Amino acid sequence: MSFDKLLRPSSIAVVGASTKGGKVGNSVLVNILEGGFSGEVFPVNPKAGVVEGRKCYSTLEAIPATVDLAVIAVKRDQVLSVLRECGRKGVHAVIVITAGFGETGDEGRKLQQEIMQVVRQYKMTMMGPNCLGLINPWHKLNASFGQKLDEPGPVALISQSGALITAIQDVAASERIGFSVLASLGNKASLDEVAFLQNLQKDVNSKVIAAYLEDISRGQEFMRVAEQVNKKKPVIVLKSGRTSAGAKAASSHTGSLAGSDSAYSSAFQRSGVIRAESIEHLFDIATALAYQPLPGGDRVAVVTNAGGPGIMMTDALEMAGLSMAKPTDSTKEKLHALLPPAASVCNPIDVLGDATGELYGRTVEVLLDCEEIDSLIVILTPQKMTDAAGTARAVAAAASKNEKPVFCCFMGARIVAEGVALLREKRIPQYSVPERAARAMREMVAYSRYKARPLRVVDRFAVNKIPVIKIIKASLGRGMYEIGEADAKTILEAYNFIVPPGMVASSVEDAVRFAGEVGYPVAMKIASPDILHKSDVGGVKIGLANAQAVEDAFELMMLRIKRRRPDAELRGVLIEKMITGGREVILGMKKDPQFGPVLMYGLGGIFVEVLKDVAFGLAPITEEECYTIIENTRSYRLLSGARGEKPVDVSLIVANLQYLSQLVIDFPEIDEVDINPLKVGQTGDNACVVDARIILSKEA
Amino acid sequence: MSFDKLLRPSSIAVVGASTKGGKVGNSVLVNILEGGFSGEVFPVNPKAGVVEGRKCYSTLEAIPATVDLAVIAVKRDQVLSVLRECGRKGVHAVIVITAGFGETGDEGRKLQQEIMQVVRQYKMTMMGPNCLGLINPWHKLNASFGQKLDEPGPVALISQSGALITAIQDVAASERIGFSVLASLGNKASLDEVAFLQNLQKDVNSKVIAAYLEDISRGQEFMRVAEQVNKKKPVIVLKSGRTSAGAKAASSHTGSLAGSDSAYSSAFQRSGVIRAESIEHLFDIATALAYQPLPGGDRVAVVTNAGGPGIMMTDALEMAGLSMAKPTDSTKEKLHALLPPAASVCNPIDVLGDATGELYGRTVEVLLDCEEIDSLIVILTPQKMTDAAGTARAVAAAASKNEKPVFCCFMGARIVAEGVALLREKRIPQYSVPERAARAMREMVAYSRYKARPLRVVDRFAVNKIPVIKIIKASLGRGMYEIGEADAKTILEAYNFIVPPGMVASSVEDAVRFAGEVGYPVAMKIASPDILHKSDVGGVKIGLANAQAVEDAFELMMLRIKRRRPDAELRGVLIEKMITGGREVILGMKKDPQFGPVLMYGLGGIFVEVLKDVAFGLAPITEEECYTIIENTRSYRLLSGARGEKPVDVSLIVANLQYLSQLVIDFPEIDEVDINPLKVGQTGDNACVVDARIILSKEA
Repeated sequence: MSFDKLLRPSSIAVVGASTKGGKVGNSVLVNILEGGFSGEVFPVNPKAGVVEGRKCYSTLEAIPATVDLAVIAVKRDQVLSVLRECGRKGVHAVIVITAGFGETGDEGRKLQQEIMQVVRQYKMTMMGPNCLGLINPWHKLNASFGQKLDEPGPVALISQSGALITAIQDVAASERIGFSVLASLGNKASLDEVAFLQNLQKDVNSKVIAAYLEDISRGQEFMRVAEQVNKKKPVIVLKSGRTSAGAKAASSHTGSLAGSDSAYSSAFQRSGVIRAESIEHLFDIATALAYQPLPGGDRVAVVTNAGGPGIMMTDALEMAGLSMAKPTDSTKEKLHALLPPAASVCNPIDVLGDATGELYGRTVEVLLDCEEIDSLIVILTPQKMTDAAGTARAVAAAASKNEKPVFCCFMGARIVAEGVALLREKRIPQYSVPERAARAMREMVAYSRYKARPLRVVDRFAVNKIPVIKIIKASLGRGMYEIGEADAKTILEAYNFIVPPGMVASSVEDAVRFAGEVGYPVAMKIASPDILHKSDVGGVKIGLANAQAVEDAFELMMLRIKRRRPDAELRGVLIEKMITGGREVILGMKKDPQFGPVLMYGLGGIFVEVLKDVAFGLAPITEEECYTIIENTRSYRLLSGARGEKPVDVSLIVANLQYLSQLVIDFPEIDEVDINPLKVGQTGDNACVVDARIILSKEA
Repeated sequence: MSFDKLLRPSSIAVVGASTKGGKVGNSVLVNILEGGFSGEVFPVNPKAGVVEGRKCYSTLEAIPATVDLAVIAVKRDQVLSVLRECGRKGVHAVIVITAGFGETGDEGRKLQQEIMQVVRQYKMTMMGPNCLGLINPWHKLNASFGQKLDEPGPVALISQSGALITAIQDVAASERIGFSVLASLGNKASLDEVAFLQNLQKDVNSKVIAAYLEDISRGQEFMRVAEQVNKKKPVIVLKSGRTSAGAKAASSHTGSLAGSDSAYSSAFQRSGVIRAESIEHLFDIATALAYQPLPGGDRVAVVTNAGGPGIMMTDALEMAGLSMAKPTDSTKEKLHALLPPAASVCNPIDVLGDATGELYGRTVEVLLDCEEIDSLIVILTPQKMTDAAGTARAVAAAASKNEKPVFCCFMGARIVAEGVALLREKRIPQYSVPERAARAMREMVAYSRYKARPLRVVDRFAVNKIPVIKIIKASLGRGMYEIGEADAKTILEAYNFIVPPGMVASSVEDAVRFAGEVGYPVAMKIASPDILHKSDVGGVKIGLANAQAVEDAFELMMLRIKRRRPDAELRGVLIEKMITGGREVILGMKKDPQFGPVLMYGLGGIFVEVLKDVAFGLAPITEEECYTIIENTRSYRLLSGARGEKPVDVSLIVANLQYLSQLVIDFPEIDEVDINPLKVGQTGDNACVVDARIILSKEA
């Protein structure tokens, strides 16, 4: 409701409207007026009588009408009182352009908190502070101090960088990409990317939502909302701060704690968000999705009038993971009938250097009718007889007869300019080089697949929370944040993990009796909440084959550890049956500051430690996502029995990942889990936790 | 000499000059005349008296002057006789524009061979056939049927696709990239990329050589020449047909056998050729190298007037493997003195949104003077006070005072157009997005490092060729192309490889005696030129610990193999001392059709077979290149002792790769070598060939 007043106000007050050209308070007013806004506009400035030919009011309260939207461009110290005035006046939406808040020092942050109180108190919608403003070309609204209003279109752009908006607007205008909304998020104190996604989901003018973001502060909500939105319209995000140096630059700029890039990637993948690699890539994808239907599959046909660019396109498509469509014999016959004898009717289809626009058009028509082709890219290089404009017209006409995506790649500049302009007018995406077309097509295919997927369902398993609650409570009660092996295994067992039969023995007699009960050979590990690196103090013995060995080990262990760590509370020794056979894998979880629990999987040994061959997913996770994670590791083929290895039952790993996911969602007190290793057997066998530890949050 | 007549002729004949506008024979003549060529131009056409206002000659011989260059645009069937005429007339250089030769069927190929005979007979230089022509803007020569002549510049471009030249010329003109030469290679029957590299090396106008290639037919010569040229000026190649689908498209287009992409990559890497990923990338790099000095290192400073693009640039530079320069305290002080208090003096240096051109210029000046900075990228986003043109001028002026490369990234279109035009005029490379600037900088740093490297020196080792000659001769004499384990080991031993002590026993008594001599435990492997997969027929036994075991194994092996393969000639059984310990690695060699012997290295076991973790290099290889290959595998860290593994003496692998390189260079009859495994020990140990086979060429 309030958001609608922001996007489509009937009346606007510009507070801080200035008579001085060049000042922000003047630019905003001029932009609103010159944009042709059809509602009422009220300049507010106690020192001016008339601004830009309009009567100026000394205060908001003096305006003799309701105000839907207030754009605030006053000095920093006046913002708070102006916002209070807005509240009292019943203003629904405010855009705070003024800077000097959260992005600066402590004083700014405090002020930002104060203005947020006022915004909440009066239930207003606020953009900013520290932003360029908002533009809605469909409503002829240019409430910004940026560029002039351009033609409306289907792309909504939200940006955490105001400076980028101007650059993008400028490029978009010259490429005739129209926007439905351009919003500068500024400090995102109130309206952030999540709020915009929620609201733009319903905006009929926005067919595609593109975003430039430096951080996402409500990670979980972002995923939930982005998933919903993506089922209706595509969300494309360019997230900067991907590398450690970039993240450092970003966090010094936004003041926010950077989440890890792998968490962002996992979050985007889960919620179907398309990740753009650059501003160019962002718009290459946005135009494709805004202007063309989605492809039914990944089989691309290429039409070209020159061999070289056809080869480049083939390379680019294959590198993008797409397939070159294979024309059937019947398709080839139709092409033969149409094209000169020297033409190639294999894909790429080479219509030869002297092809006319008409020949291009007829070829496109034939190909789009073929079932074996899901999408089409038309390459044109300027040659002697080439008619770029005619080809553009013919291709656009042929494309309009079918519900398959068609891209163009007209290469050159001035010679093809008229053709390119026509393509843009006809909403056929045009790319200057093959590689950009191929990458945009890849994202179209990926989005089409995402959209067709059923909604994600997270399985819930019957578990026993009681032991978990008890152990966590006890640990926290003692001020202990690290839960050792014995208790960690009890927790995991309560969540359906299988742990080796074992008991904690506090005397040598108990140790021998227990060992007999669980069966030889056994492993013995010191049980002490104070000792985390058990091996370092000689607290681990394995492969103990009989009672004598257990007796010896127990006494030596106690003797030595008491000597080395006189401070440690020793609860005894964990006696466990040794697990033989099976493949070692590692499961883990770490909390990301933005996206919460990030699950990790890797094959044990050199794969995790040397090759860093690990994959990530976010909890709560689905069964399908668990399989995807595991398949994403390079070592995956080893699990399926490559090279004579015994195949491992992957479904066991999947189930354990799901248990882990449920555990860390149920207990947000858990900050970190490390199951290393989990021993996984073949089909019919089990997966068994050999060692584990859990770390609790200090904020819990 | 003849090449000079091609590039800088004093007189040109256009054979097939046509009076009809639009015809190729007319376009070429018009282009030459309109280009302002200062020498004499003679149209030749028996059917016309005057063409384009010039007297037309009925034959070449009728021309009353010498002709340096003949451009031939006659019908295909007349080309041969025209070339003979050229020869008789003493024409030095010819450009055959006419198509229908090697790129078509058998008839065309035959015709192409015939014209080559004539070209050779008269020692002419020929470009084409099937090409667009040649353009030399410095000589006002436009001997092509392409676009008009543009301003001259430092970039030489050779292209295997004529259609691309026109597109590139068009884009280049609009971005003010000037060319020294534009050459369409066509079918490369005579002048190919190697010839052009050789000749352009000496061309003072060409500062950078860029090429679009679909194949390289003289791989070895290409490498040799490219290495030489790269020491003087950079060579950048866009090679299409990288993927299997792309290579298929290329080979159906060029009719040549595609080399493997890994061979191309190895060849480019060895000879310092910069590999471009797209046409855009090609020119992004070419402009950088043509217009800016080389950086002394990889430390890049970034100046920006907005945070977002600064973060993007930081990401892009880090992803490109470059370093963000770290301003020293003294640099920071100088910047503080210059910039407003809110500015950031860490890298990226944020001069803030209201920075003037002057402030940009002074900041650039300060930074270029700092020793901790090797290069600089200036980002500008259009904001309220931004003066793109003033900034361009100030940056260019500051850049000219120092010998460090400076790039710009002015973001936007119309608003920054004047600034961008000024940057182009001042020869400051300008990139539309951060990612493109960063990738160009990466190539500059890489080229600068290549240029600073000493010339490659291939070590030669003392070897014994006699046994190799004998075995190869004997094998070929018997029509056998696969050399089995025993002979392969003899060959390798002659080239300094260490093989396990072993002998071929032809009787059970010999077997037992030999085993005693080499020492237990032994391995036994059937020795037969007819049996290549020894394990499949039960022809391998390992770990035989005593005489009894050897006796049993020998008799069983003979019995069973005679039964299973009655056709096979059995020479006996190879008795070898078992090699214990050491790490298994795999060395190999395969011939590439274009680049000759490609050496392969991989760590044994899952690394080669499952993870495909292998790296390639070309023979003859240097010691340094061997180290690079090995370091390029993901498993490299395992060799150096990661995770408690015993470290392996990498220098042993290096030496063995060098021996292999020398062997396959000395004996071009060898088509393939597979040493699997080579067991490599620690420092002080040896590397020992456990199994090997060699395949000879059927064309040998």
